Amino acid sequence: MKEFQYITIADELGKLINEGVYPVGQKLPSLRLISSRFQVSIGTVLKAFVLLIDKGLILGRERSGYVVLRKSRPDIDLPESSKTISAATEVRLGPVLHQISREAQAHTSFVSFFNAVLDVGLLPLNAIRRSLQQASRDLTGAHLLYEQANGNPLLRQEIAGRSFRWNGALKAEEVVITNGALEAVSLCLRAVAEKGDTIVLETPFYYGILQTIEALGLKIVELPGDTLSGIDLDQLEQVCKEHRVAACVLISNFNNPNGAMLSDQKKRDIAAFAKRKKIPVIDDDIYGDLHFDTERPANIKSYDTDGWVMLCASFSKSVAPGYRIGWCAPGRFTEKVIRLKAVTNVATASVVQLSLLQLLNTGAYDRHLRRLRPELHKLMLLTLQAIAAHFPLETKVSRPKGGLVLWIELPKGVDALVLHQKAIAEHIQIAPGTLFSNRGDYTNYIRMSYSNLWSKRIEQAIQKLGKMIKDQVIEGSKS
Amino acid sequence: MKEFQYITIADELGKLINEGVYPVGQKLPSLRLISSRFQVSIGTVLKAFVLLIDKGLILGRERSGYVVLRKSRPDIDLPESSKTISAATEVRLGPVLHQISREAQAHTSFVSFFNAVLDVGLLPLNAIRRSLQQASRDLTGAHLLYEQANGNPLLRQEIAGRSFRWNGALKAEEVVITNGALEAVSLCLRAVAEKGDTIVLETPFYYGILQTIEALGLKIVELPGDTLSGIDLDQLEQVCKEHRVAACVLISNFNNPNGAMLSDQKKRDIAAFAKRKKIPVIDDDIYGDLHFDTERPANIKSYDTDGWVMLCASFSKSVAPGYRIGWCAPGRFTEKVIRLKAVTNVATASVVQLSLLQLLNTGAYDRHLRRLRPELHKLMLLTLQAIAAHFPLETKVSRPKGGLVLWIELPKGVDALVLHQKAIAEHIQIAPGTLFSNRGDYTNYIRMSYSNLWSKRIEQAIQKLGKMIKDQVIEGSKS
Repeated sequence: MKEFQYITIADELGKLINEGVYPVGQKLPSLRLISSRFQVSIGTVLKAFVLLIDKGLILGRERSGYVVLRKSRPDIDLPESSKTISAATEVRLGPVLHQISREAQAHTSFVSFFNAVLDVGLLPLNAIRRSLQQASRDLTGAHLLYEQANGNPLLRQEIAGRSFRWNGALKAEEVVITNGALEAVSLCLRAVAEKGDTIVLETPFYYGILQTIEALGLKIVELPGDTLSGIDLDQLEQVCKEHRVAACVLISNFNNPNGAMLSDQKKRDIAAFAKRKKIPVIDDDIYGDLHFDTERPANIKSYDTDGWVMLCASFSKSVAPGYRIGWCAPGRFTEKVIRLKAVTNVATASVVQLSLLQLLNTGAYDRHLRRLRPELHKLMLLTLQAIAAHFPLETKVSRPKGGLVLWIELPKGVDALVLHQKAIAEHIQIAPGTLFSNRGDYTNYIRMSYSNLWSKRIEQAIQKLGKMIKDQVIEGSKS
Repeated sequence: MKEFQYITIADELGKLINEGVYPVGQKLPSLRLISSRFQVSIGTVLKAFVLLIDKGLILGRERSGYVVLRKSRPDIDLPESSKTISAATEVRLGPVLHQISREAQAHTSFVSFFNAVLDVGLLPLNAIRRSLQQASRDLTGAHLLYEQANGNPLLRQEIAGRSFRWNGALKAEEVVITNGALEAVSLCLRAVAEKGDTIVLETPFYYGILQTIEALGLKIVELPGDTLSGIDLDQLEQVCKEHRVAACVLISNFNNPNGAMLSDQKKRDIAAFAKRKKIPVIDDDIYGDLHFDTERPANIKSYDTDGWVMLCASFSKSVAPGYRIGWCAPGRFTEKVIRLKAVTNVATASVVQLSLLQLLNTGAYDRHLRRLRPELHKLMLLTLQAIAAHFPLETKVSRPKGGLVLWIELPKGVDALVLHQKAIAEHIQIAPGTLFSNRGDYTNYIRMSYSNLWSKRIEQAIQKLGKMIKDQVIEGSKS
């Protein structure tokens, strides 16, 4: 899509700077020349220049052109995941996570890289207000009665109609509206697994779902997940031979935390595997709408032919977390999920569904996403750049193609929990890597969200974090 | 309260008519005379007369006074409950309930006595619209982020502040906001019981909670619950000696379906029992605000001194089912319930909490309740009267002091499931008694809600039901 072209242009120019084509101090070619070489508008080149200025690579001088300030650093390596398949183990996350979540909630004035949640300034507040006002006008007595357990039929129709965007073909009756994606995952798990059953998932993995699994008394097997490409299918086959596996939980796009994205071929293979082995695959595609490439990626459900894939998604990440509207398409388990929803909390609040329906069918949601995606991409690049500038050289960082978080491997010996404590003292919040595994892995990893609006304060916080990490490295080498 | 006086007056006059003080055809004393005898205003007497007209006992002739039409029937007996304590059994409700719930949802044009839900005409639609509009104006970006897992602090404060109405003394931090009371009960159960554990409850009991218990894989022991006074404490003691009981679930006020209300002494004794035996008691006081007497009744939590009572409540029954706002005060299990809430669906939708907060702190909720309660009382009396007029003489009916439903014991041999089928054919919905037990009891019982606005259509539906029941009795006596 055109709106992303400027990023490509900026990347190209960045490469030319790195390769020495435009050495430090040199003026870049004129806007006009670059626009004609790349066959794009002058406006697009200007946006690319702004990005390069933001990255600190060039300096813009009004009327006198753009000058190269410095080369970007050499490419940063990708973090590595655990290499081994874990045993089937009960999930025991311990008190650290609760303590950190509490801190995150208590210290709202801190600079927070902890939550994977959009900055308030990125939320479509006015559109939401308008949708609520419209909902209050549209409200009839009937809306105040219990909504159907599977959700407002018009909202389900709207969500089903949008499935063509990920090459799906859902019907309204296949969709179940839930209180957020976590409830969707929880209901899907309860539909296919009982206390003591074994679930397969990848490592590193989102702690929120680990907590849900812990609360349901399920065991997990952690499969190594590559930072770029996710799990390995042969390993999945192997695990399912060795264990009676009740279900797999996977994040097909932009795995939280490491940003891994399954290839289309792998998505297809996993859907085929689920059907062949009759093992339900829960696909948590909560970040799919927040892609940086031009096209919305497919998910595992896109290739589901027999109802063994249970898709879970949400509007919490893209519109407003407080709305608590998620949904799932649980395939052959739809009836069971609806029954569980009905006996757990009857239905999702009707008014919020009405308001979201407004946002979707007036086009406000799509307009919001079109603005949001390039903004998030820019924020990711800026954060990556700042980390590259301020963290030790050995730092490895993920390069997600969507979502809200970076996964960062710090030099060996850095204790992310100690770093977290020191950061809290400086009013900065990060997510220590140990939260993302059930076996104490990732002690020198952290997850940082890039969903805060960019500011000096954010950059300074990253600089401070870099200083703390370097201090830990030095202390470590002394002892 | 003054607004209920007219019902007392109507009852008194009804008694005088029954005793023959005012025989059929006789004129009643003048408004003025009655108002001076009972020391009430003429307006109150007039309202009492309207009620007697509604009941069909008197006929009002403008300017010529009020004439007795007929005596009311002799007092109707109360339905009887199962007499025995059940074994500890897994809950298996079977497919009938799902089918009936589906029918109730599909046939919204039918005359429905099935759902214990207020008629749309009794909901405060305009106040809710205003509260939503105000909420959309008050909405800030911060409200769009995740609400605290235990709920909006101001709403919790408001709910806690209202606890003095039932002689409680809750603090905001003891309250957890949930998606309706059923979620509250479900979270409380999960906090104190695991799959396979045994729960004690009374019989007959609300099928919705039975379904929740079934989904959680818990066993139940059903204790006989008297139609007036609920469970027997000695039997509760006995059961807790014979079984390892994980929790009791009780409805302290207006048990659904039989309307039983625990005495204050029994509430106190149960709270003391919970503390002494260290057995959590979940008190589902969802109907407590819908009392017909002047005072809001206490609940078991009112007498809780040590945190063993977990109170659950909701605004679904009194404001709008579609709002899905319930809450609980889980005593010593509060932290655990908050954690379970967080890992089940993070938090309850913030916007709906804001809107409800508006309804509460502007006084709109209390104004609504003041209008609603006498209206519901009248509807209960009218429904009781119509049942007395049209059902067979042997019919026994509960006499609830609040809530939304009547519990009706039909003559022996009447099959309520057959009646339900025949009623559906006539576009009438009732709740067959077997839904309210796990052991197939109550085959000749039905539950009927009286929360529909009164109309000829409603009365005719009751008449038709009466005809169907009488037909079944005659058929039964033939065979």
